[in-house]
This record gives sequence, C-alpha cells and structure tokens, in this order.
Amino acid sequence: MKKGMIKISVLYPNGDGKTFDTDYYCNKHMPMVKNLLGESVKALSIDRGIGGETPGLPAPYAAVGHLYFDTVADFQNSFGPHAEKIMNDLPNYTNIQPVVQISEVQL
Amino acid sequence: MKKGMIKISVLYPNGDGKTFDTDYYCNKHMPMVKNLLGESVKALSIDRGIGGETPGLPAPYAAVGHLYFDTVADFQNSFGPHAEKIMNDLPNYTNIQPVVQISEVQL
Repeated sequence: MKKGMIKISVLYPNGDGKTFDTDYYCNKHMPMVKNLLGESVKALSIDRGIGGETPGLPAPYAAVGHLYFDTVADFQNSFGPHAEKIMNDLPNYTNIQPVVQISEVQL
Repeated sequence: MKKGMIKISVLYPNGDGKTFDTDYYCNKHMPMVKNLLGESVKALSIDRGIGGETPGLPAPYAAVGHLYFDTVADFQNSFGPHAEKIMNDLPNYTNIQPVVQISEVQL
C-alpha cells in the first residue's frame, strides 16, 4: 500500500467465551461495509488470528479487518452516515467489542 | 496479499512514557530484519498509529510492523536463527514490549 495512505484497522480481541464468525465477516459484513462506503475505500484486507508469540499461545486477536483510504476525512465522511448500520451488524458475527486503530502507512 | 499467506504482525502498545522512533524502525530495524530473514519474507509493511476510535483519542498502538510468509514454517525457520539479534535491537528504537500476532490472510 502506498506511503501516506490512511489505514483503519478493526481488531477483535480474543478471550474466554469470545466468538467470531469468520465466514460471515468475510462474505457478508465486510462486503456490506465496502458497498456502503463506496469509492472512498481504496483497498481492504482481513486477517484471521491463528497464533501468538510462542507455539500454542492463542492469537491476541481473533480477527483484524483493514480498510484503506486516501485521507482521514475520506474515512470519516464515508463512514459517518453508515456507522449505525455497520455497528448494528456486529452481533451477527461476534460478541467481541472491537478496538479501532487509525494508522498512516509508512511502508 | 494472497489468501492463505501467513502474516506476522508486531504491535507496539501505546502508553504513558512509551517511546517509539519511527524513523529508526522504518530505515534501520525493518530493513535489517528483511535482510536477515531473506527470501522467506514475501512482503512487509509498517503502520504508524495516528488515532483511535474517536477524534482526540491516542492510537492503541504506536506502530505495527507486518511481515508476510508463505507458511508458518518459513517464518519460524528464517526467524529462529536471528531472533536474538533482532530482539536485541529493540532498545534502539523503543521501550515498548511488543505483542505478536500470527494471522492467515483471508482477503
């Protein structure tokens, strides 16, 4: 991804009793987000956590979704009007409260 | 990145008194890692945290580095012999104890 792009990462922390439906997330939720936000989304990617620092440790995050934008304003302007609809879909695939990180791509 | 690839993410949690030298990380540390691990590294990327869920909140992570491999074994076999040298470089750019996540790229 190009240096300077804005990357919104949504991280879903693992834990006892936490559930995450990767299939729904990849095939329903993220396509819906992409569709709602439209052309402002330049790329997206999804990671499924499979491990931690040492063999046998669980992944800190069950999953992480990333969306790329040209600017923070592009994210805010395209996400804002659809925030409620997007957040309301969470219970359909997880009981995890996600953590949001806004980053600038360095490399 | 191709579905099924292995992504090693090294996350540096923000906090009071935490420091992170992005310039050293991008221009010294990560190039050293790439050089040591050689051809097994298929791609790498670096995120610099600039914000959290709502405006004004700090980013949960000061920075996140990602390395992509074809398989977990490729990561382990190339990282293992150089782990000590790589870890010993940390104090040169940060006082943060990183969190490691192993993911499988879904999309």
